Amino acid sequence: MAGILHTTLGLRTALRYLSPHCTLSSPARRLPLDFPRQFLSPSSGRCGVCSRKLHAGADGPKPSPAAAPERLPFSRVTQEDLAFFRKTLPGRAITDPDLLEANNVDWLKSVRGFSELLLRPQTTEEVSQILSYCNSRNLAVNPQGGNTGLVGGSVPVYDEIILSTALMNNILTFDGVSGILTCQAGCVLENLSLYLEERDYIMPLDLGAKGSCHIGGNVATNAGGLRLLRYGSLRGTVLGLEVVLADGRVLDCLATLRKDNTGYDLKQLFIGSEGTLGVITAVSILCPRKPKAVNVVFLGCETFEQLLQTFQLCRGMLGEILSAFEFLDRGCMSLLNTHLKLPNPITDCPFYIVIETAGSNPTHDEEKLHNFLEEAMTSSMVTDGTVATEDTKIKALWSMRERVTEALTHDGFTYKYDISLPVERIYQLVTDMKEHLGDRAKNVVGYGHVGDGNLHLNITSTAKDPALLAAIEPFVYEWTAGCQGSISAEHGLGLKKRNYIYYSKPSQAVALMGNIKAMLDPKGILNPYKTLPDNLK
Amino acid sequence: MAGILHTTLGLRTALRYLSPHCTLSSPARRLPLDFPRQFLSPSSGRCGVCSRKLHAGADGPKPSPAAAPERLPFSRVTQEDLAFFRKTLPGRAITDPDLLEANNVDWLKSVRGFSELLLRPQTTEEVSQILSYCNSRNLAVNPQGGNTGLVGGSVPVYDEIILSTALMNNILTFDGVSGILTCQAGCVLENLSLYLEERDYIMPLDLGAKGSCHIGGNVATNAGGLRLLRYGSLRGTVLGLEVVLADGRVLDCLATLRKDNTGYDLKQLFIGSEGTLGVITAVSILCPRKPKAVNVVFLGCETFEQLLQTFQLCRGMLGEILSAFEFLDRGCMSLLNTHLKLPNPITDCPFYIVIETAGSNPTHDEEKLHNFLEEAMTSSMVTDGTVATEDTKIKALWSMRERVTEALTHDGFTYKYDISLPVERIYQLVTDMKEHLGDRAKNVVGYGHVGDGNLHLNITSTAKDPALLAAIEPFVYEWTAGCQGSISAEHGLGLKKRNYIYYSKPSQAVALMGNIKAMLDPKGILNPYKTLPDNLK
Repeated sequence: MAGILHTTLGLRTALRYLSPHCTLSSPARRLPLDFPRQFLSPSSGRCGVCSRKLHAGADGPKPSPAAAPERLPFSRVTQEDLAFFRKTLPGRAITDPDLLEANNVDWLKSVRGFSELLLRPQTTEEVSQILSYCNSRNLAVNPQGGNTGLVGGSVPVYDEIILSTALMNNILTFDGVSGILTCQAGCVLENLSLYLEERDYIMPLDLGAKGSCHIGGNVATNAGGLRLLRYGSLRGTVLGLEVVLADGRVLDCLATLRKDNTGYDLKQLFIGSEGTLGVITAVSILCPRKPKAVNVVFLGCETFEQLLQTFQLCRGMLGEILSAFEFLDRGCMSLLNTHLKLPNPITDCPFYIVIETAGSNPTHDEEKLHNFLEEAMTSSMVTDGTVATEDTKIKALWSMRERVTEALTHDGFTYKYDISLPVERIYQLVTDMKEHLGDRAKNVVGYGHVGDGNLHLNITSTAKDPALLAAIEPFVYEWTAGCQGSISAEHGLGLKKRNYIYYSKPSQAVALMGNIKAMLDPKGILNPYKTLPDNLK
Repeated sequence: MAGILHTTLGLRTALRYLSPHCTLSSPARRLPLDFPRQFLSPSSGRCGVCSRKLHAGADGPKPSPAAAPERLPFSRVTQEDLAFFRKTLPGRAITDPDLLEANNVDWLKSVRGFSELLLRPQTTEEVSQILSYCNSRNLAVNPQGGNTGLVGGSVPVYDEIILSTALMNNILTFDGVSGILTCQAGCVLENLSLYLEERDYIMPLDLGAKGSCHIGGNVATNAGGLRLLRYGSLRGTVLGLEVVLADGRVLDCLATLRKDNTGYDLKQLFIGSEGTLGVITAVSILCPRKPKAVNVVFLGCETFEQLLQTFQLCRGMLGEILSAFEFLDRGCMSLLNTHLKLPNPITDCPFYIVIETAGSNPTHDEEKLHNFLEEAMTSSMVTDGTVATEDTKIKALWSMRERVTEALTHDGFTYKYDISLPVERIYQLVTDMKEHLGDRAKNVVGYGHVGDGNLHLNITSTAKDPALLAAIEPFVYEWTAGCQGSISAEHGLGLKKRNYIYYSKPSQAVALMGNIKAMLDPKGILNPYKTLPDNLK
């Protein structure tokens, strides 16, 4: 990563290079969209420092709202149960503790379950048999995709049976005219992306965890990610789902139609329900055409107001080719410099922006980008910047945004918040938190998806610090609620945040969620202790 | 409308005019997006010929599945009830039969209710008081927006109280940075469009009925329309809803956030539920920037396969600026010529295409369009075409697509179907229907939204013809079900199509819809006899 200054073009040089009407002669300017954004590499994520145990009493005599409640009175797995599962799933009912280890612990290593049984069905019929049996026996089930969630939603809390979609990884159909893909829930996102790129399409979502996460898990958690600004949420792009309900009934809503107004849209119930209402077994999704050109610029601003002005200008001048507008603050840059030795590709600034364009005509895209950059610099919205014009350089610039998470893991114990706010307020929370905490925190930094109004607020400390946590929470949640924000923009609630739901949803709404849960899963066997608060009536 | 040939450019001329790298000097090339697409003008729609009465027994001893069931045992409005409503809504509890007439009859004049009470609340609190009272008294309620629905969902069937959102027409907030609008449910779509255009934004949906329809009704019916191809469905663009439940409880999910993963997304339940689960009182919606350039082309193809090839080419070459890809067949053109005296702007062809582009850079858009048209003609996908370069000419070309509905009303009694299919199958249904009906029909024509896989199939007859209807149905529904299509792509089910739901949804799904209805509206007072089938358990 050293030498980024030498491998990217300075902004003024880039402006000359990107002169209007220039011809597209260099193949290096035709940049593929897809470059790795994984934070799940062996060298980074799995050794995360956030290892506080969240089970009851772990935080002392007064348990945190994030701690697990007491185990509910589900049955325990018996030898008869095991015999049934071994017969139903020959060789795929796993009880070896070593083999279960990775499925019992979450990606952040912050939550551990104690399941003694992992089931690996291959078909919807097998999932149906499993759930029908578990429901009749009152056995709790933890549906699991790629286990890349960040809120403790994807691992068991006690001894729930783990139902993994890992072997349900077949692509079922792809329609090259409409761009509609149908596949089993266990397909890894990156594999789907590779499959589609060969056919001139892309997935409408992209995540750092794409090398591991399953499309079923993406849908079950309503994953956001890096393409939401351009292609919208999964609520619009998912066209159909097949879901197995708690009692084993198969709900076939696997339509492959862009429009269907025949009755209530049941699939929406399961998108973002974190496995608590049903197990998604297959997905159909509308995929966009693969863009012919991708460009990335990295800019610096003096104030957040200028950053917002740049965003407005960008939306107007880049219009339909704008595919990402991300930011990080000076604190993030400092962490990248210190812990990952990534040099700042431009001069020091309080705020940095990563802009990506994706379009169908490389020459047009470059002209639009040129005009935008010229205007942004002329009007002094941005103070410095650089343009990446080749794939490796694009990756280097993106890594300034994407490796902030990794840099944070080297800075000490990290308190992480994923907040959605009106876009003009997103940085005020960082400023107010800094002032509120004073010198109690080591670092308070902000980065995230400006285009989606989504702030990732991170606060570091040399070690786990209950006093610091008490200063952060509920301050951060109350501040967010005061702006009608969301205390979980894209990560979901899972185990860790379930009891904070009232900061973002009124009690009437939460009560109705409870009614829906009771209707679809009356025994509560599906992913218990997750998503809904403990005090639900 | 005469003289369209003279006011548009021939395709080859247009290709010369749209030469690459031409400068944008003529203001006439900067075309506003918004031009009237109303079919609700006094001279057209309201005098529709489709006047069959759908109430029980209207079709003879064996009622059609579209006929209303017997009146359910709701209470009837008493003098005490009237006193309550008059006190709650001073001057806005209407009982004058003349004033109620327009609210009792649907836009097609195909269904008539017999309500004797129209309530016109102004606030959410008033809607809450009304529903709380009606629920306690077991009085049925028909929520009504602009009453422009096509399936008998927006008018009462018997004596349901009409709850109109017409006076709930305030814009609440608009955020010029994020483009998020919040407004009351009774805002007319066109008024919202005008408000936004002054602020450099547009609504993400556009309909023929925009001059009358209410945004609350649009959301309640999950309206599709002309911009879905570009901006996606309301399930992605609606960010929040305020809804009053059947018992008067107010459900506040009026978020103005692009991302929010705190619990189940309750608002999705009400989008497309046709007023049967709650009354939408306010909406927040994400609005796109107003495009700086709009262009329209009208092309002719010899075969539907060529039309599909053109669609594929178009998606690749126009990419992110493609905003509509619509079609009509030779039969539609003949109706336009015969009944509306609209001349064919190009040579006679079996199929015609209307393509619209909308983008942020007029010069770039024209270059893309030029390149696409050149390729389409060189490869003989299209045989003739014309490009509209000025606002009035764009309107004239769009009217070839939009006035087909009007032309049909002059051709006799019309049997109308709104079918969603895999895009490569959409015209096969027209071909098969023609062969199936032989000379029993006067005309069998197809048009619609190719980009959305949405066919509008229309069959005309000199007069209402039960034998013809028996030949069409259930043939059309069975054919659609055989392709896993939807028997209602965008119109909804309402009264007329509720019993056909099983052609597009499995019984498990319909049963679950019934459970949701029972959970949210246990007395069934909200828009009874609509959306769900009569035989629901």
